[in-house]
Amino acid sequence: MAKAKRIEGVLSPVVTPFKRDYAPDAERFVRHCRWLLKSGCAGLAVFGTNSEANSMSVGEKRKLLEALIAGGVPAAALMPGTGHNALTDSIELTREAVKLGCGGVLMLPPFYYKGVSDEGLYRNFAEIIERVGDERLQLYLYHIPPVSQVPISLALIEKLISKYPGIVAGVKDSSGDWSNTKAMLDNFSRNNFDVFAGSEEFLLANMRNGGKGCITATGNVNPGPIDNVYRNWRSAEADKLQAGITATRKIVQKQPMIPALKAAIASFGNDPQWKTVRPPLVELNAEQERTLITELKAAGFSMPGLA
Amino acid sequence: MAKAKRIEGVLSPVVTPFKRDYAPDAERFVRHCRWLLKSGCAGLAVFGTNSEANSMSVGEKRKLLEALIAGGVPAAALMPGTGHNALTDSIELTREAVKLGCGGVLMLPPFYYKGVSDEGLYRNFAEIIERVGDERLQLYLYHIPPVSQVPISLALIEKLISKYPGIVAGVKDSSGDWSNTKAMLDNFSRNNFDVFAGSEEFLLANMRNGGKGCITATGNVNPGPIDNVYRNWRSAEADKLQAGITATRKIVQKQPMIPALKAAIASFGNDPQWKTVRPPLVELNAEQERTLITELKAAGFSMPGLA
Repeated sequence: MAKAKRIEGVLSPVVTPFKRDYAPDAERFVRHCRWLLKSGCAGLAVFGTNSEANSMSVGEKRKLLEALIAGGVPAAALMPGTGHNALTDSIELTREAVKLGCGGVLMLPPFYYKGVSDEGLYRNFAEIIERVGDERLQLYLYHIPPVSQVPISLALIEKLISKYPGIVAGVKDSSGDWSNTKAMLDNFSRNNFDVFAGSEEFLLANMRNGGKGCITATGNVNPGPIDNVYRNWRSAEADKLQAGITATRKIVQKQPMIPALKAAIASFGNDPQWKTVRPPLVELNAEQERTLITELKAAGFSMPGLA
Repeated sequence: MAKAKRIEGVLSPVVTPFKRDYAPDAERFVRHCRWLLKSGCAGLAVFGTNSEANSMSVGEKRKLLEALIAGGVPAAALMPGTGHNALTDSIELTREAVKLGCGGVLMLPPFYYKGVSDEGLYRNFAEIIERVGDERLQLYLYHIPPVSQVPISLALIEKLISKYPGIVAGVKDSSGDWSNTKAMLDNFSRNNFDVFAGSEEFLLANMRNGGKGCITATGNVNPGPIDNVYRNWRSAEADKLQAGITATRKIVQKQPMIPALKAAIASFGNDPQWKTVRPPLVELNAEQERTLITELKAAGFSMPGLA
């Protein structure tokens, strides 16, 4: 099997539905993934920060991944998060993702120890790549210092690209700092290295500077309009379209992001079970939920085809 | 089987030896654990921060735990770290520890998401306790905000003690902030809640204020003298003894702690394979190692019976 074609466009870090007892709900998960692909997402970054991925065991994630493939979701559209604190966990899930034919994997650095060296992080990624030992692997680095507290530096990216060209395929920049995304683009986009903005707020800027799209939380609820910016970034209307999706994001991110996404899906999809989050997260309170839904409706927001 | 007698005194968060290929080395691990118990440790907090516990999978930790028991280490002396980001991982390893008869478990909060609420953390611990569902469980909370970035507040401790008296048995305070340890002692030590200092620097102060001992990195290399402070905290010599162990600690912590502990064991035990750490950590460089060993020897440090 050859390497999958690289994913470009809008990816959603898919929120993970849980049953009342906190067990992952494969059926709702497959349904939501299919809706996302139908509604504008080019790819699915399942098991991301917004997926509560670190709140699940490797075994639970393997089962969900298998359920997606069995449920007809094309493996080539999948970019599962496979980076864990434990080297062996990262190897296990990455190997599984490659075996299933996933388009790529999005990899967090190990994030328990703080202030670790680039050399230690390099060894982590290199060891995973060597142990997986499969030319089909396309590894996207996941830079999200506000949460992981462990950044992926430009120097580390450079070292990884030069040792593993073609395998180290890109990055998701969730620093929230456009100047950092710009530096990644300026330094590496000519090296066949695909830069994804970690929020649709930077989608247009990213495209104008050689990026490949965005991987964004609100892709879970607003995939169509975000994809519309991606498809029309060269058009005269691009700035106006960008302003529209930014406005929607701002409504959502007034509330805690993950329970807000789930509350929106629960409300617009008429399926209250979606509101469940795993500890240590908590669902929105009634007031937060009311504000979110009221403001989204007032802005003309909808999720066509969901319910 | 009844609840194990509570562990009091000096506990070591045992460093984990790895083979050249980074596989956990059960044989060296058992040997080091037996040496620690012979040399002054009352208990073994295996799978702590200094154990690189989060760099190992749940399966790897289960195997090491089983190897310890098979190797003759008494389960009642064990307080394994069983807190993970994933609720299901925490439940799995805690259940295993209780089944094996461990004296307690030391539990990190989930630490990927930052700024989580006490309510979310409460649900995490409560869910684990309920699912394990075993009266033998003795759960020690692990407060280490400099690394986890997720603190365990006094209010959370109070709520957990009042809901699960006897099960929520104590805390390790690795905040490095004596005033926080003091507040834990003042608020909860009368509630059958055992407070352990996270460093021997605070051992004497902790004992004088109603604490039960310490769980300390350098317990891996200096268990005898630390235990000597514990046993003699009421004596006229206590302050002098405390000054001695603090001086040794200060030599070790000039270097990155985990590779320094391993380098000391490698050197004084004449077993270089001990130096291996898993990524993202890196071993000491030659200069750091030379400084550490030279300074320890100059201070008269030894590890009797190790080699």
